[in-house]
Amino acid sequence: MRPYSSRLPLGITMIGTQVAKVVESRNDKYSPGDLVVSNFGWVTHTISDGFQRWGDKDGPVLKLDPAVHSSPSTALGVLGMPGATSYFGFLEICKPKEGETLVVNAAAGAVGSLVGQIAKLKGCRVVGFAGSDAKVKYMLGLGFDAAYNYKKVESLDAAIKESCPNGVDLFFDNVGGEFFEVTLSNMNEFGHVSICGAISLYNATEKPKFGSVSDVILFKQLKVEGFIVSRWLEQWPKAFKEISGWIQEGKVKYDEHITEGFENMFEAFTGLFTGDNTGKAVVKI
Amino acid sequence: MRPYSSRLPLGITMIGTQVAKVVESRNDKYSPGDLVVSNFGWVTHTISDGFQRWGDKDGPVLKLDPAVHSSPSTALGVLGMPGATSYFGFLEICKPKEGETLVVNAAAGAVGSLVGQIAKLKGCRVVGFAGSDAKVKYMLGLGFDAAYNYKKVESLDAAIKESCPNGVDLFFDNVGGEFFEVTLSNMNEFGHVSICGAISLYNATEKPKFGSVSDVILFKQLKVEGFIVSRWLEQWPKAFKEISGWIQEGKVKYDEHITEGFENMFEAFTGLFTGDNTGKAVVKI
Repeated sequence: MRPYSSRLPLGITMIGTQVAKVVESRNDKYSPGDLVVSNFGWVTHTISDGFQRWGDKDGPVLKLDPAVHSSPSTALGVLGMPGATSYFGFLEICKPKEGETLVVNAAAGAVGSLVGQIAKLKGCRVVGFAGSDAKVKYMLGLGFDAAYNYKKVESLDAAIKESCPNGVDLFFDNVGGEFFEVTLSNMNEFGHVSICGAISLYNATEKPKFGSVSDVILFKQLKVEGFIVSRWLEQWPKAFKEISGWIQEGKVKYDEHITEGFENMFEAFTGLFTGDNTGKAVVKI
Repeated sequence: MRPYSSRLPLGITMIGTQVAKVVESRNDKYSPGDLVVSNFGWVTHTISDGFQRWGDKDGPVLKLDPAVHSSPSTALGVLGMPGATSYFGFLEICKPKEGETLVVNAAAGAVGSLVGQIAKLKGCRVVGFAGSDAKVKYMLGLGFDAAYNYKKVESLDAAIKESCPNGVDLFFDNVGGEFFEVTLSNMNEFGHVSICGAISLYNATEKPKFGSVSDVILFKQLKVEGFIVSRWLEQWPKAFKEISGWIQEGKVKYDEHITEGFENMFEAFTGLFTGDNTGKAVVKI
């Protein structure tokens, strides 16, 4: 939301995804009482034509599937857009192989925590970074092999070298900036980098400068790819089905950070930049 | 040679590829008088076991093929390692489609000039950058759609915007640094970047800083890959055969910058960093 919001004109409805209950319907596909999920934005009520747009992609407003969505809020997190982000962004771009080492940051959040768990399911060594000691505990509880509070490490480089004695094969980046530069310099030849976010840069008023990476990408023969999850929009339900199975088998855990009240939406949002949440930040209204 | 040479211990034979004539042979595959090409280094005479090593790859010392190599020196350039670099680095990583726009730099050199010509054969719009007005003329003579002397442009960004009105789809980078940063910021969504070199950085004593690129790669959903041509070592002969066909049909031209005398090798080499050569720099001894 943050990078897109800075491109929105003042006064427009803030973007965002919500689970909503159908109150009235002239569309055969939806009946009053149905729970649906769509990117309606920060609003209490919506008139919808049954479609949601993600960039230049159109998809139907999805009805929650009780067999998949154990609780409605999961359609916003682990079984929603963030879940699809973790699933496709990691599997399609990192292309993990058993025994490889993954570094993932913002790793106690909705996306990072699931990426790390999927990587464990695929037989990878997983090293997570997040911004508090409680989050370190959370990551270790998810089965990560090593976890760091990046605010307390003396050197990011030293932490990566310590926890990845055989180098980094896969990197799932939610942070960008210095984290991107330092992790790349610790990668193995033919490593895969999936760029999902760059949260360290979103609030920068002046673009900070970093060491060159093109020479690192060159000599390590890295593949680096950025993605926006809407490119796989048609395939999201496939991801939800598989992730839901993992949850039911107890192989994947998720957390939600719930804020009550529409009037607290802004605070819930800005909390993302101070590291308030573990798991998906959800506002309940 | 430049980036690898800085990792070599003092006093070791400088690396490099040469065409050599077999003087004596105890190997059935090679007879006195045969012309061969291999990475023997900067030496006048070599004892060879018939293999050449590129990183962790082994390949045979190649005999020149008179049907392919119209002159021996082509085995060092357009029909040698640099030719394979252009061919695989562009086709396998940029994956060009007809109508796409390519930016290539160091584009009057052995690799860049061939990349631009292959791109024209594939129906791309080609914009080349090099370091002199004579090179601009050379690039336009090769059929490039636009060509710039980067030393004379007021702004690299403005030059790219002027010559790529529909944005940049493909970028073949030999230069790195600022060029990498500026071109990325002009790329279209889902663009492909092949990183072949970073010559602007090789002689830097302190690592210069540049604007972050991870956020650009993210929001444009770019694929960026670095490569070293030895990864396709087994397939090099396939490239040479196809490029040789293009040369015979008059579709591809090449230039060589010839320096006479073993004692002038160093000068020929350092000339690469002052922009002396157009096409492949060859030393004839």
